[in-house]
Amino acid sequence: MPKLDDTSGYLIAPDPEAHALTRNVSARDHTGASVELPVIEERPLTIFLNSQEIVTAMTIGDYPDYLALGFLRNQGMLSAQDTVTGVDYDDDLQVVVVRTQDETDHEAKLKKKTRTSGCAVGTVFGDMMEGLSEVSLPETPVRTSDLYALAAQINRTPSLYLAAGAIHGTVLCKGCDPLVYMEDVGRHNAVDKIAGWMFSTGTAAHDKVLYTTGRLTSEMVIKTALMGIPTLASRSGFTAWGVDIARQVGLTLIGRMKGQRFICAAGETRLIRDIDPATVPEAPRKSGRKGA
Amino acid sequence: MPKLDDTSGYLIAPDPEAHALTRNVSARDHTGASVELPVIEERPLTIFLNSQEIVTAMTIGDYPDYLALGFLRNQGMLSAQDTVTGVDYDDDLQVVVVRTQDETDHEAKLKKKTRTSGCAVGTVFGDMMEGLSEVSLPETPVRTSDLYALAAQINRTPSLYLAAGAIHGTVLCKGCDPLVYMEDVGRHNAVDKIAGWMFSTGTAAHDKVLYTTGRLTSEMVIKTALMGIPTLASRSGFTAWGVDIARQVGLTLIGRMKGQRFICAAGETRLIRDIDPATVPEAPRKSGRKGA
Repeated sequence: MPKLDDTSGYLIAPDPEAHALTRNVSARDHTGASVELPVIEERPLTIFLNSQEIVTAMTIGDYPDYLALGFLRNQGMLSAQDTVTGVDYDDDLQVVVVRTQDETDHEAKLKKKTRTSGCAVGTVFGDMMEGLSEVSLPETPVRTSDLYALAAQINRTPSLYLAAGAIHGTVLCKGCDPLVYMEDVGRHNAVDKIAGWMFSTGTAAHDKVLYTTGRLTSEMVIKTALMGIPTLASRSGFTAWGVDIARQVGLTLIGRMKGQRFICAAGETRLIRDIDPATVPEAPRKSGRKGA
Repeated sequence: MPKLDDTSGYLIAPDPEAHALTRNVSARDHTGASVELPVIEERPLTIFLNSQEIVTAMTIGDYPDYLALGFLRNQGMLSAQDTVTGVDYDDDLQVVVVRTQDETDHEAKLKKKTRTSGCAVGTVFGDMMEGLSEVSLPETPVRTSDLYALAAQINRTPSLYLAAGAIHGTVLCKGCDPLVYMEDVGRHNAVDKIAGWMFSTGTAAHDKVLYTTGRLTSEMVIKTALMGIPTLASRSGFTAWGVDIARQVGLTLIGRMKGQRFICAAGETRLIRDIDPATVPEAPRKSGRKGA
């Protein structure tokens, strides 16, 4: 069994030492003492699809190519059939351009501007809902022993969250193995970066689990379903519509994961309860994750 | 001294008993036992400014009038000079229309679509940044005794958060008194509802403190500054740009408030440290607020 803080099993793990992602800020604590506080960077990134400016995202700035690809993919502006001929990132201009073989015009779609819930950040919600009707998720079983193992491992993985807080994480997992762990100031950016990575690498979705630190709102559930991932787990809670949509598309939805506890709000029949929860260690009080 | 869970001092307090805001969902817990889980509702609300459709927000659904007014105000689509002749809400259509004496066309502004950070929900970030240059915040002092009193009172106020979780809260305060406590699936909705209430009631901002459960990102700082409120406090952490902007506009920024602890990242000179933190009770382990 690998050490829990060993990230060698990840394909992409957080890099809390990365210079550009955090900055020390001088502040004073409650006693009036000077403190140097590591805080997350937040910078604008403007995404173009060919010559069309699509959106400016606030992001920590890592993996701009995956963020752009995943955002366009999750918004339905880029389909599995589109051939991406290049992704050009300009660090100075803070611009990323996704180029496709055949030009597309998304002006019409962009007219349907929608403000979505939670950390939803200006996505074109109407289009996302439309895409849902075509979704058919595979009935992939999920072992509770794997879920517990994933949560424990993810919570102890060195991350920007543990280093600086105020950030969300999303992890693509398979079985009991976390594979790709993305973080961002917006949890939807973290999900989009995973979608972009999956799109770039042609990674299959049917046998994956998505773990997120954020709430299970309608938009998180929709994005996961559109990505074709049949299981979504979180340490946070649900919204009613999030549960409704999960049941509608056949997604296994697990929330409030903490120590031995969790709530399965959709997909119960696909859950294989192969471990006695009483044998799972309770989360230590200072287990790592703080309220983001 | 009033009981801490007494909400009679509030002008608007959360209503965790409100029928339409939560729903019981049947689920299974980690032991496989059936549970009835109270979860937050989430529904679309489309905001019109006169005949112009502006945005569809995902919201819990209370105070649609304040949400619409505050959203338009914080986006710079409605100025202090505009005369609002009516706010019409249609529950069936889930539409709210804000009518002004003089019609305005915001199509041009809407072309500058921006995806903002954290729980930023599709605001027109460029316009918000432009508005900032005109902001001059008053140098209102803040007593740490008041901040501690506010945090303790807010954390123990009956709320949708304590009832169902997965929701953000923002509270408009004066001195040691919380006045208006709004909650929503997106914390920016909660802030917008407060902005709408202030706009509707003509409430002064210079002597107020805004308390939020969410992270202190650039957009939260910008909204608070645009509202003219000189102090923003949170139990969550900072982003670097949030701190930068707070310092630029002269906003007192307090984060990571928990029990005796807090971090002042901007506006230290306006903080009156009138209480020994050691005399402040530590937050009990189960003090109420869970990770949203």
